[in-house]
Amino acid sequence: MSVKTRLERLRNILSSKNVDAILISDEKSIFYFTEFFGGFKLLVPLKEAPILFVYSVNYEAAKEFAKNVRIELIKAGEEPSAKLLEEIARCNIKSLGFDKMNIPEYLKLNEKLKNVSLKPLENAVWSLRKIKDKHEIELMKKAAEITSRGMKKAAEIIEAGLKEYEVAAEVEYEMRKLGSNGVAFDTIVCSGSSSAFPHGGWGNLEIKRGDFVVVDVGAKYRGYCADLTRTFIIGKPTERQTRIYKAVVEAQKNAINRIKHGVKASEVDAVARDHIAKMGYGEYFVHGLGHGVGLDVHEPPRLAMSSKDILSSGNIVTVEPGIYIPGYGGVRIEDTVLVRDKDAVKLTEAPIPRY
Amino acid sequence: MSVKTRLERLRNILSSKNVDAILISDEKSIFYFTEFFGGFKLLVPLKEAPILFVYSVNYEAAKEFAKNVRIELIKAGEEPSAKLLEEIARCNIKSLGFDKMNIPEYLKLNEKLKNVSLKPLENAVWSLRKIKDKHEIELMKKAAEITSRGMKKAAEIIEAGLKEYEVAAEVEYEMRKLGSNGVAFDTIVCSGSSSAFPHGGWGNLEIKRGDFVVVDVGAKYRGYCADLTRTFIIGKPTERQTRIYKAVVEAQKNAINRIKHGVKASEVDAVARDHIAKMGYGEYFVHGLGHGVGLDVHEPPRLAMSSKDILSSGNIVTVEPGIYIPGYGGVRIEDTVLVRDKDAVKLTEAPIPRY
Repeated sequence: MSVKTRLERLRNILSSKNVDAILISDEKSIFYFTEFFGGFKLLVPLKEAPILFVYSVNYEAAKEFAKNVRIELIKAGEEPSAKLLEEIARCNIKSLGFDKMNIPEYLKLNEKLKNVSLKPLENAVWSLRKIKDKHEIELMKKAAEITSRGMKKAAEIIEAGLKEYEVAAEVEYEMRKLGSNGVAFDTIVCSGSSSAFPHGGWGNLEIKRGDFVVVDVGAKYRGYCADLTRTFIIGKPTERQTRIYKAVVEAQKNAINRIKHGVKASEVDAVARDHIAKMGYGEYFVHGLGHGVGLDVHEPPRLAMSSKDILSSGNIVTVEPGIYIPGYGGVRIEDTVLVRDKDAVKLTEAPIPRY
Repeated sequence: MSVKTRLERLRNILSSKNVDAILISDEKSIFYFTEFFGGFKLLVPLKEAPILFVYSVNYEAAKEFAKNVRIELIKAGEEPSAKLLEEIARCNIKSLGFDKMNIPEYLKLNEKLKNVSLKPLENAVWSLRKIKDKHEIELMKKAAEITSRGMKKAAEIIEAGLKEYEVAAEVEYEMRKLGSNGVAFDTIVCSGSSSAFPHGGWGNLEIKRGDFVVVDVGAKYRGYCADLTRTFIIGKPTERQTRIYKAVVEAQKNAINRIKHGVKASEVDAVARDHIAKMGYGEYFVHGLGHGVGLDVHEPPRLAMSSKDILSSGNIVTVEPGIYIPGYGGVRIEDTVLVRDKDAVKLTEAPIPRY
């Protein structure tokens, strides 16, 4: 889908919400509608070309890369909101949607725009961004492929005696050499009792025999993120380790099997949660099952007990059940999957070790 | 300085601003006051122990690592704001400062807290965070040292025929093996005409003889960031390249020499800007001279033409003049420096190549 189509769809939503324009501040949403990273604000009026406000640092790049917009330069020392207010007045905007703003900006706009009503419309942007188009799916497949190869590297090298951060170093290096544009989030490698903390520690523990080691990584490719977790057991697994590990693997498999267009996100969460509870570890699954992934590594929809989201064909989400036993250790297995009409397909393809 | 001292100083500010408490949402500010990453909100009342609100995913880690707080768990499905409102009522808070919030949160609190006045107080937190204490300076020295060694790796390997991302791969790998906790920002390696864009492109160009190559990297260590840029000339520099390069090197040197406690940030910016203008490239220095660095890679104070900041002993800032000529190429030289009573000292120590 071209940027032009995305803008058309956005305008249809604005129309249905009775606003004359939307002011977008999220840098990734600005990228979504312009293919350019580095805009300060994007004003999309219903009836004329979008206006991209940029500081001089990114002006030349905007002229080169930003699509379907008129560019307004904010010069050094210029008050950015003055320029914005000018355009809002010129376009005769009476009702203005916005995605997000910081409070001082909001209070200022509210004060200056006495005859303009401001409407939070972040969901309008997310309703588009959360359904990935063909071009986005291609980029996310590439991000997922790079990430999977990073995880294969982890599987090859991981052993007692390595520091957690040394594993992260090798995985990130592998992904970078494959053309990743960087990491989607700080890589998590956590071992032993630190693996009981879903987000780990500082990554400086030495991996030991008998440890669970959780490796949670994601490459970024052309702005798009992937998210993948495997857990390794160092040495011969104990019966307790195998039991916990298998409970997570099965919970994930069952949950992925339940995913298709039209299914409630909370129902998918329940499939995994019920299985883990049945295995006796219910209290140790301390987070939601997953989240949308795209230009942001955490975005709608949300797969959780309290989620109101309904999954749609074109959503890309993580499925990542876990069991975390304080003082003992933890296991998480995560893949990034594409929701389709009748099923879900994994984009991340690293093997799940068998223990 | 201990977390306890930081909290005391924060309370002194709250007192002077006539608020009964501050609600902190910024995750790095929460870390600053608790030594814990992963809190949802931190409520600091004047007269009792700070209350850290955490979701269950980070509850066990908070119990292990968060200092000087009482922890309130937000259970799955629980409305986080309900818990918050309860504590605000219980502490009899009539005037509540806050650092930042998203608009829906703000509107909700405003509606629910009819008898509580809400005051934006982000600057109160920054007034503390921007003066680094001894412990922070040690961590930032470590981040800077790792970053400098990453840059030395870049200097060793950079040559025609490499892809930009391959340079990034080697630099990041080096920093990771030295114990970096990840990157402070997406590494920039941009060559040739792409170096004329201060933030570069996707990093997939092949480096060619005759290119400027801008390498802008930063390691994170225990949450603290460094920021360092060098520009390399591939092959024999032309006279024009040398002239541009030297203008930037001298501008940076002059600016660093002007820095000490009590100097206006805008004055330091002017030192660099005037030199570059004198050399005939004034219109091509398209950004501010620098920014504070700490837990965030971009934070106060701001070194720019329009900055109102006065530099203080204990600030850590970047000094990064640049010249960017559209269609031709760009040069930036950047170091992270510590402001002292009578001078500034570089924390990043990579050699500046001589051309």
